[in-house]
Amino acid sequence: MQFKVTPWEVRGKINYEKLVKEFGVQKIDNKLLDKIESITGELHFMLRRKIFFAHRDLDFVLNEYEKGNKFFLYTGRAPSGPIHIGHLLPWIFTKWLQDKFDVELWFQFPDEEKFLFKKNLKFEEVEKYLEDNILDVIAIGFDPEKTNIIIDTKHASLLYKEACKIAKRITFSMVKSSFGLKEQSNIGSIFYTAMQAVPAFLPSILKNNKIPCLIPHAIDQDPHFRLSRDIIPKLGYYKPASIQCSFLPPLTGVSGKMSASEKETAIYTTDDEKTIRKKIMKYAFSGGQPTVEEHRKKGGIPEIDVCYQWLRYLFEPDDKKLEKIYYDYKSGKLLTGELKEILIKKISNFLKEHNNKKKKAKKNIDKYFEWFNIS
Amino acid sequence: MQFKVTPWEVRGKINYEKLVKEFGVQKIDNKLLDKIESITGELHFMLRRKIFFAHRDLDFVLNEYEKGNKFFLYTGRAPSGPIHIGHLLPWIFTKWLQDKFDVELWFQFPDEEKFLFKKNLKFEEVEKYLEDNILDVIAIGFDPEKTNIIIDTKHASLLYKEACKIAKRITFSMVKSSFGLKEQSNIGSIFYTAMQAVPAFLPSILKNNKIPCLIPHAIDQDPHFRLSRDIIPKLGYYKPASIQCSFLPPLTGVSGKMSASEKETAIYTTDDEKTIRKKIMKYAFSGGQPTVEEHRKKGGIPEIDVCYQWLRYLFEPDDKKLEKIYYDYKSGKLLTGELKEILIKKISNFLKEHNNKKKKAKKNIDKYFEWFNIS
Repeated sequence: MQFKVTPWEVRGKINYEKLVKEFGVQKIDNKLLDKIESITGELHFMLRRKIFFAHRDLDFVLNEYEKGNKFFLYTGRAPSGPIHIGHLLPWIFTKWLQDKFDVELWFQFPDEEKFLFKKNLKFEEVEKYLEDNILDVIAIGFDPEKTNIIIDTKHASLLYKEACKIAKRITFSMVKSSFGLKEQSNIGSIFYTAMQAVPAFLPSILKNNKIPCLIPHAIDQDPHFRLSRDIIPKLGYYKPASIQCSFLPPLTGVSGKMSASEKETAIYTTDDEKTIRKKIMKYAFSGGQPTVEEHRKKGGIPEIDVCYQWLRYLFEPDDKKLEKIYYDYKSGKLLTGELKEILIKKISNFLKEHNNKKKKAKKNIDKYFEWFNIS
Repeated sequence: MQFKVTPWEVRGKINYEKLVKEFGVQKIDNKLLDKIESITGELHFMLRRKIFFAHRDLDFVLNEYEKGNKFFLYTGRAPSGPIHIGHLLPWIFTKWLQDKFDVELWFQFPDEEKFLFKKNLKFEEVEKYLEDNILDVIAIGFDPEKTNIIIDTKHASLLYKEACKIAKRITFSMVKSSFGLKEQSNIGSIFYTAMQAVPAFLPSILKNNKIPCLIPHAIDQDPHFRLSRDIIPKLGYYKPASIQCSFLPPLTGVSGKMSASEKETAIYTTDDEKTIRKKIMKYAFSGGQPTVEEHRKKGGIPEIDVCYQWLRYLFEPDDKKLEKIYYDYKSGKLLTGELKEILIKKISNFLKEHNNKKKKAKKNIDKYFEWFNIS
């Protein structure tokens, strides 16, 4: 099966090597990892494990940082449904970047995006999820003094004019070839990419100072920034850099990406321990053998086992512990059921803590919007 | 020469009969004029002279009005240069409508429109004219208690979301066929029509009440509303009605329309008496004969004489006086030079008064924006 990666669709078994070439991004090499480590003192496990594996101009941003020219982070979330653990992955990494580099984060909620791209979705539906999604983001622990949340429709009096400046330099042919939009696409979806470009230079406008921008995101969003990267410098700002991750595999197998609209593929932040257990027991694609006897003899295949992959992507930051699980599973010492139990416990604990933070987030929410009243 | 009428280009000798058929609008017939007169007590000379000559659903709006369901007026101005007397024409009529029907006016300044459609225009240039254009509008005398001004980029936090709802129902093919946009058109210009649609139902949202909308405009803007008229009812609002005028002829002849970018074709509101005299003496296309002798013998042709036409369109509201000028000119009794003097005096007096009102407008400007702080 051919794989496909666009900002709106990810399917098939993704060949990341091929994707890197097709998109024209750079892989993060050891030299770059060394440079990051020299600044941060350590490497996040998502860097060590090449979960964040590709970039554009990361070297530029780090060089500027070393010269004392701090960047800001920009990432986002298009609300239209509940948050699952696949969404959390880049945010957890983004928090690490914020802490280690001591930088501002601008977090965009393009509340019109899914409305424009999903046929039957209404704004009322989007709004239902918007605040809850914001609380999930705040629960990650972003510094309220250094984090600013943008909601497209709410803050359009600052965004729309800047988006027009971007839009003037993008033709329909360009979005056609970059995103596969068609003559039958609606004119809101055609315009949308211009809105997504704005936070990459908005802080430079508000502070009246050219500030480098680093965008952590899953690789499927690259086409947006490929287009805007060429345009933003023409408006007098730095070309935004990016650091890109691969996709957390869906529960049902290591192809495609986790999708909020296919319930059996995802664990939501609202799932309780019972639900987590049920989903993992029922749907988690296993690299184990059909019987215990066979498993003991032949061993499992961690590379295709979703439970193992989730530990690697998110829930077991300790490399040594992860390595032990890998070899125990591969040798047949660790059974699929036991591996599942490890993951269930890890996720349950993680989400318990996450939801405690989410409850507390409610009273802090205004802090993340103060930037708009000031500007 | 073929004539052409789009929202962005008007050229050639316009065949209004043909345009009415092509656009699919209705002519304003005597029955409708009688109905207006029965409400207003009199007919504005622009109605009597069929300068406002076409409409969509004007009968619906009048019927609702008679039932006690008042409409609101919506018109606009895309700022990018100085105001000329051609711009004033529909505004003067709109003020008459506001006064006679005692209704609200929503006046849109789509400050992004010309930016998106003119290659080398910058926002700074637009902003330079924006406030001055607003003062020209206020000088017309619109009731500050009943008139609300919308600036697209400034008020986008209310407009953009509603524009997305419109945009979702318009495809690229539709704007291609309605406006002649191309694959090489920028995505801002493709999206723009959705922004122009919003004021036709925004008051209904703000007042949480379905209110009929009547849009006075020059016929070249019809394609915008032709598209949005089909969509707005799907969002739950009344289909906006329109009342449409023909174009004030440019100084240089009775083809095309007055253009702010061709200086010799226009009289600006900022022109002083000396400039007005110079322009009219030098450029005004004349229906007179080459020599005084010949003129006395053969007479002039008022139908193609721009001075006569301007009196008819704007500066001589008295039908009897206008008729006298018509026959005096046609018979050769009135010379071209004398006709020009009549017009020069009329325009000079008009603009002197206009500019006095414009000076006073400055201190009232905030009143027209109060709606935004309240909503």
